[in-house]
Amino acid sequence: MLIRSEFTIEFQLPQDAAMIGLLRLHPSLDSRVRFPEQLRVEKFDTEQSSPVAVEEYIDSFGNRCSRFLAPAGNLRLSGESLVIAADTIDPICTEARQHPVEELPADVLQFLLSSRYCQVDQLSLVAGDLFGHTTPGWARAIWIRDWVHNHVSFDYKSARPIKTALDVFTERVGVCRDFQHLAITLCRAMNIPARYVTGYLGDIRRPFSGAGDFSAWYEVFLDGRWWTMDARHNDERIGRVLMATGRDATDVAITTSFGIANLTKFYVESYEVDDAGTPVPLPPKP
Amino acid sequence: MLIRSEFTIEFQLPQDAAMIGLLRLHPSLDSRVRFPEQLRVEKFDTEQSSPVAVEEYIDSFGNRCSRFLAPAGNLRLSGESLVIAADTIDPICTEARQHPVEELPADVLQFLLSSRYCQVDQLSLVAGDLFGHTTPGWARAIWIRDWVHNHVSFDYKSARPIKTALDVFTERVGVCRDFQHLAITLCRAMNIPARYVTGYLGDIRRPFSGAGDFSAWYEVFLDGRWWTMDARHNDERIGRVLMATGRDATDVAITTSFGIANLTKFYVESYEVDDAGTPVPLPPKP
Amino acid sequence: MLIRSEFTIEFQLPQDAAMIGLLRLHPSLDSRVRFPEQLRVEKFDTEQSSPVAVEEYIDSFGNRCSRFLAPAGNLRLSGESLVIAADTIDPICTEARQHPVEELPADVLQFLLSSRYCQVDQLSLVAGDLFGHTTPGWARAIWIRDWVHNHVSFDYKSARPIKTALDVFTERVGVCRDFQHLAITLCRAMNIPARYVTGYLGDIRRPFSGAGDFSAWYEVFLDGRWWTMDARHNDERIGRVLMATGRDATDVAITTSFGIANLTKFYVESYEVDDAGTPVPLPPKP
Amino acid sequence: MLIRSEFTIEFQLPQDAAMIGLLRLHPSLDSRVRFPEQLRVEKFDTEQSSPVAVEEYIDSFGNRCSRFLAPAGNLRLSGESLVIAADTIDPICTEARQHPVEELPADVLQFLLSSRYCQVDQLSLVAGDLFGHTTPGWARAIWIRDWVHNHVSFDYKSARPIKTALDVFTERVGVCRDFQHLAITLCRAMNIPARYVTGYLGDIRRPFSGAGDFSAWYEVFLDGRWWTMDARHNDERIGRVLMATGRDATDVAITTSFGIANLTKFYVESYEVDDAGTPVPLPPKP
Repeated sequence: MLIRSEFTIEFQLPQDAAMIGLLRLHPSLDSRVRFPEQLRVEKFDTEQSSPVAVEEYIDSFGNRCSRFLAPAGNLRLSGESLVIAADTIDPICTEARQHPVEELPADVLQFLLSSRYCQVDQLSLVAGDLFGHTTPGWARAIWIRDWVHNHVSFDYKSARPIKTALDVFTERVGVCRDFQHLAITLCRAMNIPARYVTGYLGDIRRPFSGAGDFSAWYEVFLDGRWWTMDARHNDERIGRVLMATGRDATDVAITTSFGIANLTKFYVESYEVDDAGTPVPLPPKP
Repeated sequence: MLIRSEFTIEFQLPQDAAMIGLLRLHPSLDSRVRFPEQLRVEKFDTEQSSPVAVEEYIDSFGNRCSRFLAPAGNLRLSGESLVIAADTIDPICTEARQHPVEELPADVLQFLLSSRYCQVDQLSLVAGDLFGHTTPGWARAIWIRDWVHNHVSFDYKSARPIKTALDVFTERVGVCRDFQHLAITLCRAMNIPARYVTGYLGDIRRPFSGAGDFSAWYEVFLDGRWWTMDARHNDERIGRVLMATGRDATDVAITTSFGIANLTKFYVESYEVDDAGTPVPLPPKP
Repeated sequence: MLIRSEFTIEFQLPQDAAMIGLLRLHPSLDSRVRFPEQLRVEKFDTEQSSPVAVEEYIDSFGNRCSRFLAPAGNLRLSGESLVIAADTIDPICTEARQHPVEELPADVLQFLLSSRYCQVDQLSLVAGDLFGHTTPGWARAIWIRDWVHNHVSFDYKSARPIKTALDVFTERVGVCRDFQHLAITLCRAMNIPARYVTGYLGDIRRPFSGAGDFSAWYEVFLDGRWWTMDARHNDERIGRVLMATGRDATDVAITTSFGIANLTKFYVESYEVDDAGTPVPLPPKP
Repeated sequence: MLIRSEFTIEFQLPQDAAMIGLLRLHPSLDSRVRFPEQLRVEKFDTEQSSPVAVEEYIDSFGNRCSRFLAPAGNLRLSGESLVIAADTIDPICTEARQHPVEELPADVLQFLLSSRYCQVDQLSLVAGDLFGHTTPGWARAIWIRDWVHNHVSFDYKSARPIKTALDVFTERVGVCRDFQHLAITLCRAMNIPARYVTGYLGDIRRPFSGAGDFSAWYEVFLDGRWWTMDARHNDERIGRVLMATGRDATDVAITTSFGIANLTKFYVESYEVDDAGTPVPLPPKP
């Protein structure tokens, strides 16, 4: 199946500011991209626009990052992509076993540690209380995912940039990233490596779910590979398009600005298309 | 000049636990190491000891890490090293200029972000108040280092594993790592990349200063390279021996244990020796 | 001058819940109230309403509190008042001296301590840095008020129930109560007793300022009496109508509910009237 | 039975500082005090001592407080008391029912609210998870007390002045006051009024328990009265001698100093005596 994703984000900058964007698809998707996707950065005013030079690099997590000096004034970031995606839901593997820490690949170990939003140190005893009785492996990972889903409610108004997993644990309300931060932290506390993921998640072959946006989910490492988990939408989904992975939202922010950048427009969409490029309608709501 | 360093750390483990140690010298010192330094890991009791298998790997920051499955019982980690060190103090370069963020090497950018103990997001406005008036570059870095040194006092009893830079800012008391975490956070907030460093710091060619231990310091990136800074001992020192660098103490903990490990012995020493291996006496106290 | 204030607040309760309201005028205004003000509490549906029994008591701070068992369903709290107010602005007394702590009246001492939202212990060293050089007394109090006003910006969307003075200090954004909590904490840290105040503050004899609502301000104790301060609107105002004072917002919440109570309507207004009860128009905007 | 208590606390002050002490017995014990107990405050040096004038007042919680201007130099606070105490253990009443909030006496309501160390707002959902299934009243109060006792371990080194109930919940280690703060917060979250208590608690008619000190415990309000609870020593004790009650440790600190006061000596003892004033020996350790 084919998924088309596109976005336009605009900022107003009072003065020049360096910016980093993680708005490209993940390098692991390269062989499945139908036409060259890219990030366009433009300075614009009412009459014209001019391109801003962008430099790309791969960060220590393997993500494709873009950096540029955004000039004062109006700035537009935009892009679109078309990828061939599996038409199957997120894999389920109830047999997936949990590795003892000593068996984990060395590059996975960092995803057991605390990070900015994921205070494993502060939630490890809580996690032991809640999940110590569960069966290690897939069952435990699902238990954690479902616990977070069932104990946290979604509210856009509750978002704040410094909200940590501990805050989510006490406040029990959040947005996508908050659900995932708490689940990641609890997984790590139970010695299941977990990493934060950003990407597109449209309402693909699903009735309306409120998604269709840049989204955040997470992955756990069990039985030799990473598995997709989503504590906000805790059912399996079709059509996730991977952009970046990291320890938490700090590492993979859509944009990071080293100076003031006021958001003035935010459009993103991700949907299935047929071979002719025509959007495939959603199924009816039940 | 030659510096000999050695350590013995012992734990008691109620049951098997995977452990990671960052107790080797940094790979960048390899050409200056006199004899093969290594990490010995042994299980021991009153009668005998037996070696524990250790696997080495390099983490994403370039540090040499050791991992092993520590068996229940008594565990000893030990090692010694002899390195040829410069007999000059930490470099000073009052001309070192601050790079605009857009000029920084890509792999340095991560050291501008928030991390577990370094909440750049929460201290950026405070940093602007305190250091916004200072001259970017070396002068600003020194201003920050000295501000932390002068506003925080040292107290071993104040150490706690979850103490963050914001805690240090409000409590104004801490140990080595706390001084460095606060200074790192304030540097990043002023767009100076800063990373956390662990290593040996003996009282080398200095009268007694209370050091002679594993120590923590930090580095700032100015004018195309990293420079050593130390907000606890804010004078230049001789004879730092580098072990590891990372975003903060989370990344470079001496030991990380995935299970209970009770510390029962901690010995570490670092001192100058002559070519015959004889310790060079310290200068008299003033 | 005469000030009329009125409010209607509605909740939907899934089940019975005890509630406390601090919605009456402060007992110190009794001699200036023109007609008996009261709090009406009613259960209502589309067809009718029925009164809910209210019990009044005076709390340890001297506030007039109302308590009642709110029945499941729709609940309406309403009231109006007419008070004779001075037509002068908040008093200014640049000569007001700061009492040494040992001279303060005993019942004022509690307003030097930490409270839920006002962590004097965590901000005392910060306060010393910022205000240690200022002249004790009125000048210091004004310096603190103005510092908060100038370093914090107002944003309704930034409100959250658990935001503390330390959060306001780092985030630098908040609503009324956040400005006052930070100013109160900094005053106490400098040994100036400070208490939190709620009341009506309309746009009385002022062009539009965004007020006209239940508002929060604070009082400092200098030279033998309490003085009104307001770190959000740091100019002197006319027509504040006092409802309650306490250590911080915990003590004087407009309503405290011991169970779920979803806010469905919130209307409040406070304005000058003439002797005939006709609203006096605001002056034109400049 | 007779209990004698005595203390000597010394400070060194670099300059004059106002102080408040809550070191007298609670007024409710007046009829049971055998000889006039008092607080002596003296300035002293190696040769002599001179009294410091003390003023007494009753705070809003009904505690007997002492205030004085401590002069620069060495300061000694001392006192002793002899009280007739019941020779029975802390009362147990498994039938004690929990009042609906609307039935509570008005002056008890404040002990349901958040305070400096007791963030009811942040722990209410956690408390619901942990204790929502328990039977309201005595059983619930005991369940909370025992949960805290069983999940928190005692460690003097873990004490810090700004440790809150939420910190205790995540760190699971603390001293007396930390146990009680967490238990108080969880009780309030379940609508059981709870207040913090300080007093003497000796090893009276008990083998050695590590007590014999100023201690902290708490009280819950059930069935029309306050009941003693102690989440550190969660068995019933004999011979508690009440000093003060408040919302949390902020309100009833043994000493509060408005300036620097370095503790140089701390002696306190509380023990049973016979009618002749001779200490009654402890029972043998089991």
